Amino acid sequence: MTPKFPATTRTDLKRHPERGSYDREIIHPILDEALLCHVAFTVGAQPVVIPTLFARVGETMYLHGSAIGRMLRTLAGGVEVCVNVTLLDGLVFARSAFSHSMNYRSVVVFGTAREVTCPMEKLRALEATVEQVARGRWADARQPTDKELAATLVVAIPLDEASAKIRTGGPKDAEADYALPVWAGVVPLGLQAGPPESDDRNLRDVGVPAYASSYSRPR
Amino acid sequence: MTPKFPATTRTDLKRHPERGSYDREIIHPILDEALLCHVAFTVGAQPVVIPTLFARVGETMYLHGSAIGRMLRTLAGGVEVCVNVTLLDGLVFARSAFSHSMNYRSVVVFGTAREVTCPMEKLRALEATVEQVARGRWADARQPTDKELAATLVVAIPLDEASAKIRTGGPKDAEADYALPVWAGVVPLGLQAGPPESDDRNLRDVGVPAYASSYSRPR
Repeated sequence: MTPKFPATTRTDLKRHPERGSYDREIIHPILDEALLCHVAFTVGAQPVVIPTLFARVGETMYLHGSAIGRMLRTLAGGVEVCVNVTLLDGLVFARSAFSHSMNYRSVVVFGTAREVTCPMEKLRALEATVEQVARGRWADARQPTDKELAATLVVAIPLDEASAKIRTGGPKDAEADYALPVWAGVVPLGLQAGPPESDDRNLRDVGVPAYASSYSRPR
Repeated sequence: MTPKFPATTRTDLKRHPERGSYDREIIHPILDEALLCHVAFTVGAQPVVIPTLFARVGETMYLHGSAIGRMLRTLAGGVEVCVNVTLLDGLVFARSAFSHSMNYRSVVVFGTAREVTCPMEKLRALEATVEQVARGRWADARQPTDKELAATLVVAIPLDEASAKIRTGGPKDAEADYALPVWAGVVPLGLQAGPPESDDRNLRDVGVPAYASSYSRPR
């Protein structure tokens, strides 16, 4: 395993190459912190993009969904996909409108999906998906039945061709603009969890697990 | 102006049609609350998806970027695009692993982009983009020069073919699973702003504007 993904004609960073990276040590934590990815593929000549949960297991991304849904059936057919994962970290207010920006950590993956047919790999992929949402939840929840597994399609996308793009720090104005009486700075942004809302039909002696009462993303 | 978008073969909701809507009164507020959209298009036969800021002005979405960047140049060429905007509102913990879900509000738009060449429309689109990030910021910031405008490409995507998909509420388990001693409920999620980080080079008498000190999204 090399520590870096190779730059390809698809992942080669054209705009702001100084913000780019092919390091697995940078890319993996971005994928692990995210909840949603956006998956693009084509249906005929039509581009389609769909948000979905995912899991990373080593050098593989797993997506899942209904076995009768369009997205998963299309992906299982082995089409080209592009997956984007973006964490929005802040809004960057510059003195000039033109220099406004965002702080973000973003990963793009190009590849071809394959249907996961091995029952063990499929179960482990679903476990990883639940665990990516809340570590510890898989063991607490009722496990899937064979019928539920049959109704679920899982696809794997190899992390062979991936790159990260990251912006951090404050605004960068043109030198003359620093004399302007305009507030500049960063408003940090992040995903915040509120207090858990327990279901009305929970059994009386069931407590709120820690992954729900103090929910946070790994960082 | 009809209150609803027409359902087309592209926006027709196949999975969970009960979660779908074509109402402008539902779709517009989702677009207005969001900061990022994900734009999918094809380059040759390759699907590509890129996250970017946007603005909604009436029945038009505007995207902008570097005039020499690949995304905007491709879009300005009049290709088919698919835009997704997703607000993640909560994680839904069901008793069974299979019934776990998310609460979300999502919009998908299909269409063809056109380059905005009219200088007035271009300026208004950029103003709307800054205002979508922080209302009041455009008037405070230094306005774009002709050179900056020339370096920026703006494209418009008409909101002709759009649909929303929304999930709210608690978990829905199979009836037999309600007897299980497993905590179920919702962990609400939302974007949270932290205290603004003023730039070191701000002039001494420049205060922090309210849109930065108490940043929030319209809802």
